[in-house]
Amino acid sequence: MAGSSFGTLFRMTTWGESHGKGIGVVVDGCPAGLSLCEEDIQVYLDRRKPGQSKFTTARNEGDTVEILSGVFEGKTTGTPISLLVRNQDQRSRDYSEIASYYRPGHADYTFDAKYGFRDYRGGGRSSGRETTGRVAAGAIAAKALQTLGITVTAYTKEIGGICVSEEKFDLALCGQNRLYMPDAEAARKAEELLTQKMSEMDSVGGIVECIATGVLAGIGETVFEKLDANLAKAILSIGAVKGFEIGDGFAAAKSFGSENNDAFCMRDGAVAKKSNHAGGILGGMSDGDTIVLRAAFKPTASIAKQQDTVNRDGEEIEISIKGRHDPIIVPRAVVVVETMTAAALFDMILMGMGSRMDKIKEFYGGKR
Amino acid sequence: MAGSSFGTLFRMTTWGESHGKGIGVVVDGCPAGLSLCEEDIQVYLDRRKPGQSKFTTARNEGDTVEILSGVFEGKTTGTPISLLVRNQDQRSRDYSEIASYYRPGHADYTFDAKYGFRDYRGGGRSSGRETTGRVAAGAIAAKALQTLGITVTAYTKEIGGICVSEEKFDLALCGQNRLYMPDAEAARKAEELLTQKMSEMDSVGGIVECIATGVLAGIGETVFEKLDANLAKAILSIGAVKGFEIGDGFAAAKSFGSENNDAFCMRDGAVAKKSNHAGGILGGMSDGDTIVLRAAFKPTASIAKQQDTVNRDGEEIEISIKGRHDPIIVPRAVVVVETMTAAALFDMILMGMGSRMDKIKEFYGGKR
Amino acid sequence: MAGSSFGTLFRMTTWGESHGKGIGVVVDGCPAGLSLCEEDIQVYLDRRKPGQSKFTTARNEGDTVEILSGVFEGKTTGTPISLLVRNQDQRSRDYSEIASYYRPGHADYTFDAKYGFRDYRGGGRSSGRETTGRVAAGAIAAKALQTLGITVTAYTKEIGGICVSEEKFDLALCGQNRLYMPDAEAARKAEELLTQKMSEMDSVGGIVECIATGVLAGIGETVFEKLDANLAKAILSIGAVKGFEIGDGFAAAKSFGSENNDAFCMRDGAVAKKSNHAGGILGGMSDGDTIVLRAAFKPTASIAKQQDTVNRDGEEIEISIKGRHDPIIVPRAVVVVETMTAAALFDMILMGMGSRMDKIKEFYGGKR
Amino acid sequence: MAGSSFGTLFRMTTWGESHGKGIGVVVDGCPAGLSLCEEDIQVYLDRRKPGQSKFTTARNEGDTVEILSGVFEGKTTGTPISLLVRNQDQRSRDYSEIASYYRPGHADYTFDAKYGFRDYRGGGRSSGRETTGRVAAGAIAAKALQTLGITVTAYTKEIGGICVSEEKFDLALCGQNRLYMPDAEAARKAEELLTQKMSEMDSVGGIVECIATGVLAGIGETVFEKLDANLAKAILSIGAVKGFEIGDGFAAAKSFGSENNDAFCMRDGAVAKKSNHAGGILGGMSDGDTIVLRAAFKPTASIAKQQDTVNRDGEEIEISIKGRHDPIIVPRAVVVVETMTAAALFDMILMGMGSRMDKIKEFYGGKR
Repeated sequence: MAGSSFGTLFRMTTWGESHGKGIGVVVDGCPAGLSLCEEDIQVYLDRRKPGQSKFTTARNEGDTVEILSGVFEGKTTGTPISLLVRNQDQRSRDYSEIASYYRPGHADYTFDAKYGFRDYRGGGRSSGRETTGRVAAGAIAAKALQTLGITVTAYTKEIGGICVSEEKFDLALCGQNRLYMPDAEAARKAEELLTQKMSEMDSVGGIVECIATGVLAGIGETVFEKLDANLAKAILSIGAVKGFEIGDGFAAAKSFGSENNDAFCMRDGAVAKKSNHAGGILGGMSDGDTIVLRAAFKPTASIAKQQDTVNRDGEEIEISIKGRHDPIIVPRAVVVVETMTAAALFDMILMGMGSRMDKIKEFYGGKR
Repeated sequence: MAGSSFGTLFRMTTWGESHGKGIGVVVDGCPAGLSLCEEDIQVYLDRRKPGQSKFTTARNEGDTVEILSGVFEGKTTGTPISLLVRNQDQRSRDYSEIASYYRPGHADYTFDAKYGFRDYRGGGRSSGRETTGRVAAGAIAAKALQTLGITVTAYTKEIGGICVSEEKFDLALCGQNRLYMPDAEAARKAEELLTQKMSEMDSVGGIVECIATGVLAGIGETVFEKLDANLAKAILSIGAVKGFEIGDGFAAAKSFGSENNDAFCMRDGAVAKKSNHAGGILGGMSDGDTIVLRAAFKPTASIAKQQDTVNRDGEEIEISIKGRHDPIIVPRAVVVVETMTAAALFDMILMGMGSRMDKIKEFYGGKR
Repeated sequence: MAGSSFGTLFRMTTWGESHGKGIGVVVDGCPAGLSLCEEDIQVYLDRRKPGQSKFTTARNEGDTVEILSGVFEGKTTGTPISLLVRNQDQRSRDYSEIASYYRPGHADYTFDAKYGFRDYRGGGRSSGRETTGRVAAGAIAAKALQTLGITVTAYTKEIGGICVSEEKFDLALCGQNRLYMPDAEAARKAEELLTQKMSEMDSVGGIVECIATGVLAGIGETVFEKLDANLAKAILSIGAVKGFEIGDGFAAAKSFGSENNDAFCMRDGAVAKKSNHAGGILGGMSDGDTIVLRAAFKPTASIAKQQDTVNRDGEEIEISIKGRHDPIIVPRAVVVVETMTAAALFDMILMGMGSRMDKIKEFYGGKR
Repeated sequence: MAGSSFGTLFRMTTWGESHGKGIGVVVDGCPAGLSLCEEDIQVYLDRRKPGQSKFTTARNEGDTVEILSGVFEGKTTGTPISLLVRNQDQRSRDYSEIASYYRPGHADYTFDAKYGFRDYRGGGRSSGRETTGRVAAGAIAAKALQTLGITVTAYTKEIGGICVSEEKFDLALCGQNRLYMPDAEAARKAEELLTQKMSEMDSVGGIVECIATGVLAGIGETVFEKLDANLAKAILSIGAVKGFEIGDGFAAAKSFGSENNDAFCMRDGAVAKKSNHAGGILGGMSDGDTIVLRAAFKPTASIAKQQDTVNRDGEEIEISIKGRHDPIIVPRAVVVVETMTAAALFDMILMGMGSRMDKIKEFYGGKR
């Protein structure tokens, strides 16, 4: 089926393989009149592109985005925005080995099971490179949200069990370390762990946290299209994610009602909450508080250590994956979580505009 | 927007409020020729209905389902199956108090923020009673899956931090305790905790685990419509769920690649895996192994303990929620997780039928 | 697949068979705060119910609608509105004959081809009775449109080639003849033709026209979700419809640009058109003028005259369809065209709310 | 909203403006294993490209398509196929005049009403050039259908009232005249009319007919997703289309049941029909017979003749549209109708695969 689109009213459709001609996305449903240029998108792409540190693959990709449509005289027109990133690194390596077997932790086997064969060059469509399109699309959503006073920010919460401490938490620190950790000490420890695991030809997992501020209460639908349900889908659609939490998440399962319930109070003349165990969502709708979510990423599947597997001929073999691979996915995934959150959130804001007859009347009745 | 439908090809649309005339669902897209009678659905509804133990509300509801359409001579016809459960307990209590304030942990405030007002009787549409429709629809999906050799089973994994032990795990025990825990000792301890917390006018959270066996490899789409992404949405759409895991979930984030990767091997002439950290899904597609997911439920929001909140007039008040409420959601939610998993899974099986041109040709070319 | 839903944000899902327990619809996505009672819907249902004249089947159906959910204290709550009409006429006739063969012009054969069997009682799901659900749902859309100053009106344009004259056209006349023709003389002639054709055991086709006034310019999307494209789908989804026109329709194909183009002019300080060959739609979007569409209905397929056909055993046979059948579909279809038009139009109004960033900002920024 | 996608399982998403950087489409959901190269698509694009005859605009566009993704070693992989056609003719003309007023019959005014402004260069997104993406996508659907034994063919039925005669109808003639008329005499007369109307600075409308053969019975869903309803939407989504017919269309409205019903018979051991007034569709599902549909195109809106209109400042003015424009849309639209029909049909075939439980079991149970 058609599984490469996300969103109902603000909808992105991504395409492209790791070693094909390029990677891209079509953003359909972006409202007209948003100021947009390539640089707005490029800053997000630069956060996920390879070669930024010793912990990311050295693949040489400029990842330069080109806007092909939907923008006129510096503003979105309301028509589809087509974004293209040409792949530079298409050199024809010898892929015969990788084509012949199934890498553990990768989608090689499931692709073959589903489609009968696969584009095995660099992981094809299941490569992390697929996220380029999402990030580009989500960057537009993020910009639209900013005009509404909403900010979405993601960062590394934990790497290999080393967690950012609440006391030392400082978002300003994220930009100062290539792990995007808002805690200098945790970042230092995590770098040590990564250096060690690289030398062991192994890889590490971690957790990304994302917060959204400025979201008014009442965004999200009440049953299946809950805001958190759509955020969960957005996050789990990112490769290597194995878990999702909103607010206290799994900790809430060990909690008691008297602890977990957030008391309502009045603040600056408006309804507010004294705590935020809920993570900003009640009954599937935003409650006006900061939205807090987390994504658990498994360790990079590609490791140099020897592994058991099978080949396409059904023989059990031992392999050792060659080439340079990120020992951790998390730092480059931070911007992916952030932009997918932005995309899901903006889509739900648009979807919620028709919730009340009085608002529709006001909207429709005004001068258009 | 229209947020009460789930699924693309096998689609349920639920309706109904806690204290309205009834609760129901329309299941559209169910294939023709499935044997179906009311009893097939009733057994699932009976697992979630109130009054089963001292830990569930005493509300008197027969929850008897009536098939209104889509079944002819004992078989589904391919047309929409409309299911109706009339509410019995519609007695007109005095709701003036509950109507006037916002219960912590509930959707009262967000409903008002979104829609301007709400049906406050028993929580209206955001009541746990809403799940009746999902369970009824998912029961049909579960039956369809059974004809394909797929079994979906959920159970209580953890209550208030008391976890089922791997050693004592025995699915057969689930039916023997009203907490649906596959470990008699854990169940006993959990009952003690619940009894204690009830006496403290408090409530408890927990975790439901769900496994699906018999799912062939290759189910799920590769980017946004990943099988796990849809399962995550299905599960997070259940009220009170705050977290979702597939396979090792958050534990994978603390793991290393050499531990977390599941080695492929040959078993009975077919590709298999030596371990299942992945929870049966690789790259968003089933890998032929058991699918394992978990849902974290927060403690019941309705507690008798005194709580701070605000009323609709913007005054800070103290409340104590009256009436009998389940001190835990989990045991009754087990069947909800199970049926939502079944529904999401069956939908994705249908969606994947057109993945390969050769299979389509074979399918289309044959005698119809 | 799930084919019984219409609309994206304002979505109806219909269910029910001609001789099953009932017919119904779930309307999801109706904005909160619309005044709604059963009578609002009943007046529309009464326009399509049987037994109104000698030209409609004598089947005895009260077609009384019950609102099961989604309305609280006389207003829609924003949650799904479930509507139920119990079938009264479920008497167990002998259907063995009709079950055994394929009626010409009916869906008997295609149902069997698709599903392997069918609910043959009274046509099952492909009965005209299926439209009950649509009409009930569309009645809600019509009421919502009225609050926005939009009126949708359908009437009989032509019966068996007898066409309403432009000179004598008077909408007030529709209510005075059971054919819903806004021209008394044409109505009289049409009645004569129908009487004659009934005596010949034959049936007659016709055309329904529908106009919508008060639609502001800019409703509809620009490529595939054009307003006219969605109206066309809405209309062609009605059984027995074989053609659709917007504005001049097929006559435009015989016209020249200088005739067919509608010149723009200023009227009351606003952009207007001097003529309306376009039928109120330019480039898929409403242009502020009256929307005009037409639906061509084929003659009733059930006729008493002898016909050739085949039975399920593959034998060629002659049949004569028993029972009383409407000699024409059109008069009862008028309200179906009207309500489907209303539903499609209201859905597109909701979908278009997010077209402009400045409007969204204004909407979102205001007090909620 | 997102209005640039068509289809549910086989879904195209088009993008691009007349004078932007290019035009393209992403085809998502195309099954894996279909042989596909650029030439397969190019032959369809060449049928709609400008400069083919004196009746089409002289705009110089190679319209060369590039496959950017989704094809590996000559076969589709099941992942999105991104197709790009770079615009060559982007010369910066002086558009200040066209930007300032609303051309009659065009979407200038409605675009402004909806979005607040528009990309006015060459009509922007509402240019006929938008169809390039559809045709490219539909070409893939057509190729997929061919592997199933289904052929879709469109041709010009009528131009300015000059209709192809049934006696002289010969599909082979279409390729021999640039009007794609399967009747040499009608083509000659139509050319004369067009030459005359060009000299009068006027334009002409016409009708395209499209037939699909080899479609087995049972394709299409039974209520809102009827095959003909989706075809109607597909066709009305093409710019300048004002009417749609299936089978006898509007003529059926003047017919009687005894004439219009197609008697069933046995032919070669299978159920068949003696006539095809239904156009191959009964109850929204294919009946095994040839599918026949027609699209009515209005005359080209751009004419050199003087016209009244208004400008953006609300002043009534007279204009005369400069430049070379096709005096008729129909010949270049033939391939658009054909490919949209193919796309809608293939999508519905995929959607119908899950109609029967026994077929699903067979499909799922087999070796994958």
